[in-house]
Amino acid sequence: MIINIPENSDFSIHNIPFGIFSTQNKGKRAGVAIGDHILDLAAVAELGVFDFDAGVLEREDLNDFIMLGKATTSKVRTDIQQWLQDEHSVLAGKPELFVKQSEAQMHMPVCVGDYTDFYSSIEHATNVGKMFRDPENALLPNWKHIPVGYHGRASSIVISGTPVHRPKGQTLPKDATQPVFGPSQRLDFELEMGFIVGKNTPLGASVSTQMAEDYIFGLVLFNDWSARDIQKWEYVPLGPFLAKNFASSISPWIVTLDALEPFRVPGPTQEPKVLPYLQYEGNKNYDIHLEVSIRPEGGTETPICHSNFKYMYWNMAQQLAHHTVNGCNIHVGDMMASGTISGKEENSYGSMLELSWMGTQPVQLKDGSERKFIQDGDTVNMRGYAQKGDIRVGFGEVSTKVLPAK
Amino acid sequence: MIINIPENSDFSIHNIPFGIFSTQNKGKRAGVAIGDHILDLAAVAELGVFDFDAGVLEREDLNDFIMLGKATTSKVRTDIQQWLQDEHSVLAGKPELFVKQSEAQMHMPVCVGDYTDFYSSIEHATNVGKMFRDPENALLPNWKHIPVGYHGRASSIVISGTPVHRPKGQTLPKDATQPVFGPSQRLDFELEMGFIVGKNTPLGASVSTQMAEDYIFGLVLFNDWSARDIQKWEYVPLGPFLAKNFASSISPWIVTLDALEPFRVPGPTQEPKVLPYLQYEGNKNYDIHLEVSIRPEGGTETPICHSNFKYMYWNMAQQLAHHTVNGCNIHVGDMMASGTISGKEENSYGSMLELSWMGTQPVQLKDGSERKFIQDGDTVNMRGYAQKGDIRVGFGEVSTKVLPAK
Repeated sequence: MIINIPENSDFSIHNIPFGIFSTQNKGKRAGVAIGDHILDLAAVAELGVFDFDAGVLEREDLNDFIMLGKATTSKVRTDIQQWLQDEHSVLAGKPELFVKQSEAQMHMPVCVGDYTDFYSSIEHATNVGKMFRDPENALLPNWKHIPVGYHGRASSIVISGTPVHRPKGQTLPKDATQPVFGPSQRLDFELEMGFIVGKNTPLGASVSTQMAEDYIFGLVLFNDWSARDIQKWEYVPLGPFLAKNFASSISPWIVTLDALEPFRVPGPTQEPKVLPYLQYEGNKNYDIHLEVSIRPEGGTETPICHSNFKYMYWNMAQQLAHHTVNGCNIHVGDMMASGTISGKEENSYGSMLELSWMGTQPVQLKDGSERKFIQDGDTVNMRGYAQKGDIRVGFGEVSTKVLPAK
Repeated sequence: MIINIPENSDFSIHNIPFGIFSTQNKGKRAGVAIGDHILDLAAVAELGVFDFDAGVLEREDLNDFIMLGKATTSKVRTDIQQWLQDEHSVLAGKPELFVKQSEAQMHMPVCVGDYTDFYSSIEHATNVGKMFRDPENALLPNWKHIPVGYHGRASSIVISGTPVHRPKGQTLPKDATQPVFGPSQRLDFELEMGFIVGKNTPLGASVSTQMAEDYIFGLVLFNDWSARDIQKWEYVPLGPFLAKNFASSISPWIVTLDALEPFRVPGPTQEPKVLPYLQYEGNKNYDIHLEVSIRPEGGTETPICHSNFKYMYWNMAQQLAHHTVNGCNIHVGDMMASGTISGKEENSYGSMLELSWMGTQPVQLKDGSERKFIQDGDTVNMRGYAQKGDIRVGFGEVSTKVLPAK
């Protein structure tokens, strides 16, 4: 290996995720994470090793690079894997191609045209149904037939490290008949993963479950910030709006679907049987460990949730097939998030709403304090990795500090 | 006047709306509509009359032009008004600057980053509430407190003239327990107007009702295509998704807020009083006549709806103040639609759902046929204009033919 990779690094030779970074001396460009370093792809391109217009590696985002197609982008990844392992490769003896991650600033990896949020964890949907509707009929009638989704705000998706201000908005206090205005009292995270569309479709075209993976470039960790009190008052009948669109946070490195190949697992049995356009063959879930922790201002971190992407009832291929079955067009850079990923165990719930059961069972932190929802000054960290034997492919983290309302 | 403007033209000297067009000989560029012609702004720029980088007039869309700011874009409009009326101006004796609209192809005027749809007509919300919920309590508790809105799909907004295929999707037949898949049987239009954001905000900033108009560049006619049967099955609890995102159609010319200044009228009294951040001063509604007609395949047109933008309960300044009160950022080119614009009279309802009262009172067409919803081969035309004495400012039309499901 021509660069040292720490043991248990998320960014092993098996990963090679893509991102956009800048350094003090140079602006935004494309890179791949390897160990604690970034391989500067724009600099690698100057070696003349790529057979495409290297200009796509010096854009504000990866959209034009992804647009080259998987034949090209997958080859870039496997070439880099080979070069990094070959002491005589084009990358050898060129330390200037590698930038320390600690000396780089990460940026949004793609320009997100449209962002869709699904609601695909049966445990999460059941928990929410139990709390807000009928505990005996927690799932709505359409839930097992449709990968329920809705459109979210693309403009307010921000990169890990960007602080988020507590949103203000309208809420209806308990027993009140008139709403009040002020900072949300029930600020929450949602543990999700988001996939990034890797190929355009024209308006009117549909993507089948069989072809869907061809249209998925890769995944990131996704924190779908939610203001529960604002949501409760606004969401009937047209869905969440201001409760969500103040910010969503993502991890900076796009882990490709190629890198996740070893971690495919079967999904849950879908009963009743879904309509033909949602049926699929093969393993389309992924075994990815997920963790959420809270670090209070000046304190230490407490892990509060351990979940797994494999719990998803609806997989990404089904989500994409559903999204496009009516002819809705998709573009490179579009982001589609999973919805909160909860498991069966209480410590696997992917939101404070569920972990504290609507605030009735506060979550204990290491410093002795407790949380019903997220407080000002808290930093919420989400991490994820897949592991199989010696092969580890990780996502790094999405880390966000909550600041007081403006 | 150095160009002939037909009487009653939507594109009078008082209008000067902006759009993107192309001709057989030349690609996309910016223009303004005047009478039956387009003044080619990229060609005008070659005369050296503009004091900004004329490159913004030869882009795929108007975003960079709008980004110059109202000080610049408003002056372009008033300069053009002056030049067109002055026989000795820079435009005189230069017929090559004018392109016949009949010889031009119109394109999407902006690249839409995010699209939001509101639900701001009290008559429409009341009609829907009567049909689907409780006739005695038709309006939901939040409706008079919040300009209810939700995020829609930006990628599938298309320009007038683009045919739209009937969408396929899941629906739950009457008395059935399992959904079926197929072409929508209840395809509908929604008569709306959309405004285009003219100024960016950073994440975390809010726009007050007083400042809101500074952030609105102009308006277009907006047809929010809706599949009622798909919507009914999918929309609880997260709102409309596939029922709407297969297509929305807009008129090609952006009529500026400047041009609509003479048509301001008071809005309806809002009772109960709204929260302070939604209060406003001055006249913020606009008197714009709106009309919808249906033309069956090979037949003649029947006007089926006469409505008016002045009926809106929530105005654009309130919509924008609400949208950003939580810090949600907005970008130039974002589109925000009004929601269906219905009036009090039965012939002013802005959708087939209301006009045919859920299919129970079919609408009669001139050719003797009737419509509960829109049929394959139908062309739906929406038109709008404002008039005060001799001053007429119109929007042209958004015309869309419905093709069979693919």
